[in-house]
Amino acid sequence: MADLTAENSEKAIGVFDSGLGGLTCVAELIKLMPSENIIYFGDIARVPYGTRSRETILEYARQDVNFIKSHDVKMIIAACGTVSSIAGTSKDFAGDIPFTGVVIPAVQAACAATKSGRIGVIGTSATIRSGAYGKAIRNIRQDAVIIGNSCTMFVPMVENGITAADDIVVKEMVRRYLKPIKDENVDVLILGCTHYPILRDAIAEYMGEGVTLISSGAEAAKHTMNMLASRNLLSDRTEAGTVSYYTSDSSELFEANARSFIGDSLKGSVTQISIDELSRI
Amino acid sequence: MADLTAENSEKAIGVFDSGLGGLTCVAELIKLMPSENIIYFGDIARVPYGTRSRETILEYARQDVNFIKSHDVKMIIAACGTVSSIAGTSKDFAGDIPFTGVVIPAVQAACAATKSGRIGVIGTSATIRSGAYGKAIRNIRQDAVIIGNSCTMFVPMVENGITAADDIVVKEMVRRYLKPIKDENVDVLILGCTHYPILRDAIAEYMGEGVTLISSGAEAAKHTMNMLASRNLLSDRTEAGTVSYYTSDSSELFEANARSFIGDSLKGSVTQISIDELSRI
Repeated sequence: MADLTAENSEKAIGVFDSGLGGLTCVAELIKLMPSENIIYFGDIARVPYGTRSRETILEYARQDVNFIKSHDVKMIIAACGTVSSIAGTSKDFAGDIPFTGVVIPAVQAACAATKSGRIGVIGTSATIRSGAYGKAIRNIRQDAVIIGNSCTMFVPMVENGITAADDIVVKEMVRRYLKPIKDENVDVLILGCTHYPILRDAIAEYMGEGVTLISSGAEAAKHTMNMLASRNLLSDRTEAGTVSYYTSDSSELFEANARSFIGDSLKGSVTQISIDELSRI
Repeated sequence: MADLTAENSEKAIGVFDSGLGGLTCVAELIKLMPSENIIYFGDIARVPYGTRSRETILEYARQDVNFIKSHDVKMIIAACGTVSSIAGTSKDFAGDIPFTGVVIPAVQAACAATKSGRIGVIGTSATIRSGAYGKAIRNIRQDAVIIGNSCTMFVPMVENGITAADDIVVKEMVRRYLKPIKDENVDVLILGCTHYPILRDAIAEYMGEGVTLISSGAEAAKHTMNMLASRNLLSDRTEAGTVSYYTSDSSELFEANARSFIGDSLKGSVTQISIDELSRI
């Protein structure tokens, strides 16, 4: 009998996001497991997802997953807070392939980090409306006090490079969205959208030293390493892995905007696939 | 021989936009020609267009036009600054149906209004990159001095209700984008994206009384009236016309957000069509 595990362990890890936020997860994957191959899909022709309806988000996510699956991967990460919140851990999505979103890993880290049991959650409108983070937290810690807020401008701000901690617009928007959470004396704040770590400095400064920030993308990367290890699916490769980026809009647009997320780590080919192709998969 | 003009004149006017900005054009159409029927399509499942590549914008616009054409209209308005700038007056688009974008009407109004010949233009990244407004202005007035700037945050701000003239974020973003234009002493400013009139108060306050603001959506509505009149295609109806709204995401989402654009004038049915359907047209 062939050793299917050994064969599967050399396959790539598949990661997708509505746009570029998932690259904060890719950066962590590369740091943790430098010899893994990674396939990334960013749906930048239809970003953002977080202001759309549940049905539209599910339809886009289904297409994203099918595209990733067409590359024969060993694991799929929905590195998008919105998709993770709406689709949950749905088995329909990934079939037999090991799958994780960002909600469970972030919630586990938050519950481990909190002392007071008072946890803040920020995300897109769709994420906060879904209540997914709250439900997952209460599964682990029933007495938790959860204060959530949707930060609808954070994704456009990040995508347009308005991120400096000393920028008056950044300071004011951070204050506006986070004041109701800070006022409740949380000791942990989940950055429930993979775009938000780009605003980390401004958020940390406003929330103060006593508050631990949890990056959902980075936690999903750690969780992925544990899942692969427990299934004996970590690569045996000794050289550095490759990263192949796919995007639904032009590769120039992707490359130009990706640097703010992943800096010089953006090494690897960028290929555009058409929206029509995506709809037909 | 049948009077085709009379038959055609009772057809609807078709209007489309990436999202809700085109409603600023619809509001003006209703004001100018209250007995006309209007079909509106807002592609809110894929808004915004202005940060995407030229090819993706053209593909989306082609689908939008084909959807509008499937309703047998007498005229098509691309009430989207981005589509108008990229697709121009392309005959490929609308075929034999009278067609207008927002660029030419806005430019004609700007050239009529300017005394100094110094004209400012603001729009999305794709609009400003295309240079469409500048080319159209120089066709009318070769000696014009044109100062353009892309205001990438204006669309997300408008869509998220961050529009009050006394809001510190609105003030700061308006100053940041418009200072280079104000510094050049323009006497006319084209709001080259149909979302921007929602920020009119803040823009007017910053630019000062000496600067005439041109709303591209409202000018397109006036231009449409002239085109229909010259072709003998104005409706003879005496009762009020109907407006039928179509959208690519949920009708609830459309209705919830549309009020800030069109207020209580949003009377008429809202129907969702699927993205898959749109791709197949």
